[in-house]
Amino acid sequence: MFRARFLCRKGKRARTDSGNLFFQIPRIKKIMAKKASGTKKQKYVYKFGNKKADGNGKMKELLGGKGANLAEMTRIGLPVPPGFTISTDVCTYFYDHKRSYPKELQAQMEDGVRNMERVLKKKFGDENRPLLVAVRSGARDSMPGMMDTILNLGLNDKTVKALAKSSGNERFAWDCYRRFIQMYGDVVMGVQSLPGEDHEPFESMIEEYKLELFPGEPHAEDSRLDADQVKELVRRFKKLVKDRTRKSFPSDPWKQLQGAVGAVFGSWNNDRANVYRRKYGIPHEWGTAVNVQAMVFGNTGDDSGSGVAFTRDPANGEKVFYGEFLINAQGEDVVAGVRTPEPVADLKKVMPKAYAELDAIRHTLESHFTDMQDFEFTIEEGEVYMLQTRNGKRTGVAAVHIACDMVREKLIDWQTAVQRVPADQLDQLLAPIFNSKAIKKANKIAHGLPAGPGAATGQIYFNADRAVEAADKGEKVLLVRIETSPEDLRGMIASEGILTARGGVSSHAALVARQMGKVCVCGADALSIDYHDKTMTVGKLVLKEGQFVSIDGTSGNIYEGKVDTAPSEVVQVLVQKTLNPKKSKTFRDFSQLMGWCKKVTKLGVRTNADTPEQTENAVAFGASGIGLTRTEHMFFEGNRIDAVREMILADKIDDRQKALDKLLPYQREDFEGIFKALKGLPATIRLLDPPLHEFLPHDHAAQSQLADTLGVSMDLISKRVHELHEFNPMLGHRGCRLGVVYPEISAMQARAIFEAAANVQKKKKIKCRPEIMVPLVGFARELELQIEVIHRVAAEVSKEKKVKFNYLVGTMIEVPRGALTADEIAKHAQFFSFGTNDLTQTTLGMSRDDSGTFLPAYQEVEIVKSNPFASVDQDGVGQLMEIATAKGRSTRPEIKLGICGEHGGDPSSVGFCHKLGLNYVSCSPFRVPVARLAAAQAALEDAPAPRAKTAKKAVKKTVKAKAAKKAVKKTAKKAVKKKSRK
Amino acid sequence: MFRARFLCRKGKRARTDSGNLFFQIPRIKKIMAKKASGTKKQKYVYKFGNKKADGNGKMKELLGGKGANLAEMTRIGLPVPPGFTISTDVCTYFYDHKRSYPKELQAQMEDGVRNMERVLKKKFGDENRPLLVAVRSGARDSMPGMMDTILNLGLNDKTVKALAKSSGNERFAWDCYRRFIQMYGDVVMGVQSLPGEDHEPFESMIEEYKLELFPGEPHAEDSRLDADQVKELVRRFKKLVKDRTRKSFPSDPWKQLQGAVGAVFGSWNNDRANVYRRKYGIPHEWGTAVNVQAMVFGNTGDDSGSGVAFTRDPANGEKVFYGEFLINAQGEDVVAGVRTPEPVADLKKVMPKAYAELDAIRHTLESHFTDMQDFEFTIEEGEVYMLQTRNGKRTGVAAVHIACDMVREKLIDWQTAVQRVPADQLDQLLAPIFNSKAIKKANKIAHGLPAGPGAATGQIYFNADRAVEAADKGEKVLLVRIETSPEDLRGMIASEGILTARGGVSSHAALVARQMGKVCVCGADALSIDYHDKTMTVGKLVLKEGQFVSIDGTSGNIYEGKVDTAPSEVVQVLVQKTLNPKKSKTFRDFSQLMGWCKKVTKLGVRTNADTPEQTENAVAFGASGIGLTRTEHMFFEGNRIDAVREMILADKIDDRQKALDKLLPYQREDFEGIFKALKGLPATIRLLDPPLHEFLPHDHAAQSQLADTLGVSMDLISKRVHELHEFNPMLGHRGCRLGVVYPEISAMQARAIFEAAANVQKKKKIKCRPEIMVPLVGFARELELQIEVIHRVAAEVSKEKKVKFNYLVGTMIEVPRGALTADEIAKHAQFFSFGTNDLTQTTLGMSRDDSGTFLPAYQEVEIVKSNPFASVDQDGVGQLMEIATAKGRSTRPEIKLGICGEHGGDPSSVGFCHKLGLNYVSCSPFRVPVARLAAAQAALEDAPAPRAKTAKKAVKKTVKAKAAKKAVKKTAKKAVKKKSRK
Repeated sequence: MFRARFLCRKGKRARTDSGNLFFQIPRIKKIMAKKASGTKKQKYVYKFGNKKADGNGKMKELLGGKGANLAEMTRIGLPVPPGFTISTDVCTYFYDHKRSYPKELQAQMEDGVRNMERVLKKKFGDENRPLLVAVRSGARDSMPGMMDTILNLGLNDKTVKALAKSSGNERFAWDCYRRFIQMYGDVVMGVQSLPGEDHEPFESMIEEYKLELFPGEPHAEDSRLDADQVKELVRRFKKLVKDRTRKSFPSDPWKQLQGAVGAVFGSWNNDRANVYRRKYGIPHEWGTAVNVQAMVFGNTGDDSGSGVAFTRDPANGEKVFYGEFLINAQGEDVVAGVRTPEPVADLKKVMPKAYAELDAIRHTLESHFTDMQDFEFTIEEGEVYMLQTRNGKRTGVAAVHIACDMVREKLIDWQTAVQRVPADQLDQLLAPIFNSKAIKKANKIAHGLPAGPGAATGQIYFNADRAVEAADKGEKVLLVRIETSPEDLRGMIASEGILTARGGVSSHAALVARQMGKVCVCGADALSIDYHDKTMTVGKLVLKEGQFVSIDGTSGNIYEGKVDTAPSEVVQVLVQKTLNPKKSKTFRDFSQLMGWCKKVTKLGVRTNADTPEQTENAVAFGASGIGLTRTEHMFFEGNRIDAVREMILADKIDDRQKALDKLLPYQREDFEGIFKALKGLPATIRLLDPPLHEFLPHDHAAQSQLADTLGVSMDLISKRVHELHEFNPMLGHRGCRLGVVYPEISAMQARAIFEAAANVQKKKKIKCRPEIMVPLVGFARELELQIEVIHRVAAEVSKEKKVKFNYLVGTMIEVPRGALTADEIAKHAQFFSFGTNDLTQTTLGMSRDDSGTFLPAYQEVEIVKSNPFASVDQDGVGQLMEIATAKGRSTRPEIKLGICGEHGGDPSSVGFCHKLGLNYVSCSPFRVPVARLAAAQAALEDAPAPRAKTAKKAVKKTVKAKAAKKAVKKTAKKAVKKKSRK
Repeated sequence: MFRARFLCRKGKRARTDSGNLFFQIPRIKKIMAKKASGTKKQKYVYKFGNKKADGNGKMKELLGGKGANLAEMTRIGLPVPPGFTISTDVCTYFYDHKRSYPKELQAQMEDGVRNMERVLKKKFGDENRPLLVAVRSGARDSMPGMMDTILNLGLNDKTVKALAKSSGNERFAWDCYRRFIQMYGDVVMGVQSLPGEDHEPFESMIEEYKLELFPGEPHAEDSRLDADQVKELVRRFKKLVKDRTRKSFPSDPWKQLQGAVGAVFGSWNNDRANVYRRKYGIPHEWGTAVNVQAMVFGNTGDDSGSGVAFTRDPANGEKVFYGEFLINAQGEDVVAGVRTPEPVADLKKVMPKAYAELDAIRHTLESHFTDMQDFEFTIEEGEVYMLQTRNGKRTGVAAVHIACDMVREKLIDWQTAVQRVPADQLDQLLAPIFNSKAIKKANKIAHGLPAGPGAATGQIYFNADRAVEAADKGEKVLLVRIETSPEDLRGMIASEGILTARGGVSSHAALVARQMGKVCVCGADALSIDYHDKTMTVGKLVLKEGQFVSIDGTSGNIYEGKVDTAPSEVVQVLVQKTLNPKKSKTFRDFSQLMGWCKKVTKLGVRTNADTPEQTENAVAFGASGIGLTRTEHMFFEGNRIDAVREMILADKIDDRQKALDKLLPYQREDFEGIFKALKGLPATIRLLDPPLHEFLPHDHAAQSQLADTLGVSMDLISKRVHELHEFNPMLGHRGCRLGVVYPEISAMQARAIFEAAANVQKKKKIKCRPEIMVPLVGFARELELQIEVIHRVAAEVSKEKKVKFNYLVGTMIEVPRGALTADEIAKHAQFFSFGTNDLTQTTLGMSRDDSGTFLPAYQEVEIVKSNPFASVDQDGVGQLMEIATAKGRSTRPEIKLGICGEHGGDPSSVGFCHKLGLNYVSCSPFRVPVARLAAAQAALEDAPAPRAKTAKKAVKKTVKAKAAKKAVKKTAKKAVKKKSRK
């Protein structure tokens, strides 16, 4: 698992649309023939080697990431094979000038090669000591596997013999030559599979030849070919190139080099790279650099090898030398997975000198780059060479530990540490995890969408009631549903995790799971779930109720059977309070990080919480209040659903009032619990939002049972269910539209809130700060009418209980009309909270629940870059948020602004909210730390801590500005003078 | 019917929240006591009488509509009882100064009264010739019945005797006094029913007294009371006032007058008036005027009477004297409906002199006011008096005839004629109508929403197939459904009219009905429809399949049995071509009006049409092309639905392609028909829009039949139906989302369009101008991808058929994101068409189909002024349209802009589109004339024909602007001089 994730970054070598890319040699030659004279020469080629380099690590824009770091490593004395980088300026020139080159380039490249020759005492194309080179791309940001690479360049029928001689290994030399022709033929000369050919033509040729040699052995290994047989392959390869391209394979190393450089620049514009750039927002104008570097060989024998290593453990952040290597292999062999690499620690035994040198390099790299590095090395006949270094990717857990350790080691300051941890990975510290050994042995049966991070294992149940029963018996339960609805809530609470066959990362299951911090995998469409037979089928595997299944909500993987899990230490300390904080390194670093965040954050982070327990958790995680309490979630608990249904079935206002009177004490109790848990922090409480039919049972049996319970006729119930049916419930009779038509419902809820506040203030001496939120407002008058009800009730309760209330009334902005008329609405609203879930649905005209059928295709063809229900669609929804913010402030400058959609826990959305200048974001309790980190990062990005350079720049700017002002004044004076002269 | 509609405009006399309104006499007296001296007196009171008047007909702002016209009638020599108008300025003052009056008022009122006294030779409060007055409100716009009126003011225990003497009728005099006390007691002194009292206290007292006099006769008529008995009533009334208010009834006429004026001003602010003003958008600041006018009595004997008349027939526009009168009655008796009034023509026999005088007045009024007038008159002892005149309300038919006649009579110019016809009433000229005699006898059983204007009668069927069968047999059919769906289309086509129990004026039934010009009444919730029993129940009446029902789609009325209808003459001429245009006066005036419209209109009017027939009709009505062809409507016709279903059920692209290949010829044929019908006009064709599940059958039987037809398993069908089910289909996988996921569908449709265009161009030599419209675009890239497909297909067909195409590709703007990112989208779109149906649903977050449960309440509490699905919500949806228009033009200045929602046929929305500067609106064929008229009116309003005054103003403006420029230049020069001095 781990190997695959961290070492495959090269990806498979790619095919190229070479037709376009073929190098125009005659033209280039012409250009190169002209000597540049008279004009100031621009520098295009940056040499490195022998501890000197033209470039340095800060020149990533010009030299690409790889090139800049090769220069930097050379400068600080690390053993880097010499070479040179052709700058990204050449790439720009190449595309601006019909794929031609600046005239200075050839001479500078020649100078670069001469330098390598001098350092290595070899010569390009020499028949005795030939210089061989690798040509690699290197963009500003790493684009793994997207562009082309050529190795062993410089080999031809003559130099191959010299290589054979110098290495003392004829087969090795010819195999290098064979590989070179294959790579070059494919990438530069465009020898690729024709329509109808299943395999790459060079590979087919090898297979064919092996079958000639070893008939009846279809899978004979390449290693059985001897030197002469490899020679024969080289001959056949050259013939293939000639047959397919009608051109001979070039033997002149300069021609080879020109071809390779052209192919690399050309590959910047291949489909694959274009797609990648669009996906990651890399501008086309950046271009790529090209690195030409002397070859070193890890495959010359048992005193050679190649490896990939990290300066610290990227999985857990420990400060150990971490990585893998292969003896007698080239770098690509380590990645390809044909042979299994060994842990880098074993190198100590095999090549103690090389190990010691690498370990020293590791420390040098870290202290120099002040970040964890991921580097590639090759050992050629005992000599260590560095081929690449870059900042290493790491898990969230590792990121936190490394950042905190490095501050302690004084490598970085705390601001840098805050910016180093990817915010959305922080919840890895909170999620339960699979026991690492157990998971390796587990049988993965399917894959779904990772919807609630963490690991869960339990017995499967397909029905909420059965799940609750089982949990009551002490079973660990996994609730498995085609999709979930509010009726499943109790079952979800009782379960370790939730698994659904339908629904996206914002489906009910996912939403509630994240809300409750439950593990969840959803939309696993390979699962076929049969409620009647109580089975879940995947292919031929049939799992029955009660059997064990395990799910990984971080990866989306689903496993058969029980897999052991462990709870996160942070949760053990803060929530379960079963772990001494001093005993947990994870907690120490987590709380260290949160402490730093607190220093810089401007944006408040509240929580979406519906119960005292959730509220307590969120406050433990640092929430500054509740940003959203959904009162309707409370309607499903216990017996109160009966009163809710009675209310819905009531025909007359009197009957409805009776039912509401029954609900009042329940709601009051809920709010009392929440106010107590908040200990004086504010609570945004949303009035009833979902359409009433969501509360009625849908199947006949449940309806019949309800008829019995309430003592009404079955007819009445089915009539009301029918009446309440909606074609588009999302756009139906819900939100404040309920409160407008049935003001008595709003009045009951307001009364429950104020009575609870009165009780808690009087009995517990805890201040209560309710912020009552009216949902789905599109017209100012809707809010006006609801506010009248709320103020009236507040005044009543205040008089009855002899208590003063400190409360606000505001609204959600969740339909476009609300945003567009925010100036009118703000005349009534003391706060806005952006309900970005619904605002996204209405702005895009896209149902969250139904988008699963086309959203994946939309991401594929790049209509959307990310799921708009996970990350705020800044161009569309964001525009409405900006409009609403500006309009709202135009009529009420002090208006409080927040966001309470699921987006409140998404780092990029949090950053956007910071930019908008909102007062707070609100997210589910377990996302609070993520949002706090994202908010801190946004604040740091906005106003970076003053550093020497920045300060200097600022001074310069001011000076410039003053100068500009002076200039303007002068011109103005002149103008006046001129006029007065007239 | 007619009487009720046109004469009830007074409404019932209203109750007042008198607590607030009570006149503060002491304060007023104080103010009045002070003589205004030294300051320039403002004029508050405008006298009229004896052919002289301070005011005139143009002073409606200051004097209200009634006051201004009383002055105007006086000026032109009509017999108006003298009086004065207290201006609206006093109302403003009244509310700005805590319900007090300007100090000048009392003196001016006194002057007004003196003037009346002079003219009539009577005296206010005099015991011999007392002046009696009426006090009436009169706002700028008529607000019928909203404010208070007091008659017979000036009566007291002494003056009543004089009235008895002068009229020679003691009972009449005391009854006037009785009425006065009752009115004044209610309106000014606030004697109204207390909680628990069922009846108005004065009325109760009369009933009580009659029971004393005539025991056992509970319904004895008031007329049986003799003079002494009325006197007794007056005594009891005064006691009631004293008991209830602890104040004596005022006997001083001045006190009475002050009280009445205060009550009228106060009534400007009563709940009723406030609601009315909010509803009709009348600003509170306007205020009301108060008219004090000498009483004339129509109830002094058989040579007296009162009436209400029109200068032309308001129902059909004929130039005849039209109206009603009652002998020996006051104006309110005519309206109250206790006695049945007689036609005004009969007055000729009874009082020939008065009739001749009124007929002359009628002509004077018309030639003076140049519009049809609605006036009130009273005849007192043979003398005619005019009490009011105003522009008369009329039917659409009458409006057209009157406007055209008046142009012919040279009373008005054609521009005025165009502005005189209410655009939304124009389709009355196109709708079939009930035979006027038949409808009077019909039994009205229920009422629904008027959704497709006109009259229809037929046998009821509850199922589309049964309706088609019956129609095939030659029956006149009325399709009755709980609600309709696309599956009912054939049944709707076969029917005379459509009646539904659910759904609003924009429901599927209503939409399709208007589209097809069918009569429709929808949302008649009193109907209980049982598909199984094939019955429709209203109360106790059960109607079975096959029984006759008639519906009036203009009024929403539903009648039992058959009621004869007649087709509109315009339709007979233009569509059916069964009537010689020269024989129809209606057609002559209709086409006259349309001709005038053509002269001024800037905004094009296109049509929404799905068939050649609809297209032809629309072109006959003057459409300039098609603005929307919904290709999916074609999917339901004939056998093609099978191919559509095959396409939907296809699992593999090959199978889908096969089904699409079957559909291609059908679609091509459809488009050929449309191109031919258009004769070179452009056609906007929308690609497939609805979600696929709309095409699959929903019930088991139909699914099973489909399985047989297609030879697939029932399982497959029910699986696919299940897969395609959506929670919110409106926001689901539809519009261009279908084309993005299945580009082959878009390709088929594009091919059908281009092949059809090629065929029609080649074979028929008719130019084709397809404008292909991609629906539901929210992201520029969606459109980009679909355009690629369309251009590719166009190029293919162009090559195959050797034809060049003149086509455009554009998009609907129907989700907020499309509007917000219109600049990006316009880079690809050659035109935008606002799909305001869906744009309203998404912007408001309100489902058209589900809004019926709360939208009526929303109109009641004035959250919305009109149904946003009928008239564009300009503050919300309109804002997005403005944004999209501006952004779209920012990247493509020449972009073509239109609207194709149902709003395209709504006059106020058409006006809005004109203001936005759209190129065209598009509406259903039968709404084309309405939209053309509305567009012409918008153009006239925008740039009124140059008239003397306007021209003068314009010159003044220019002069002012020049002066302003000069001033600026001067200042600038000065500034320069100042500087140069420094």
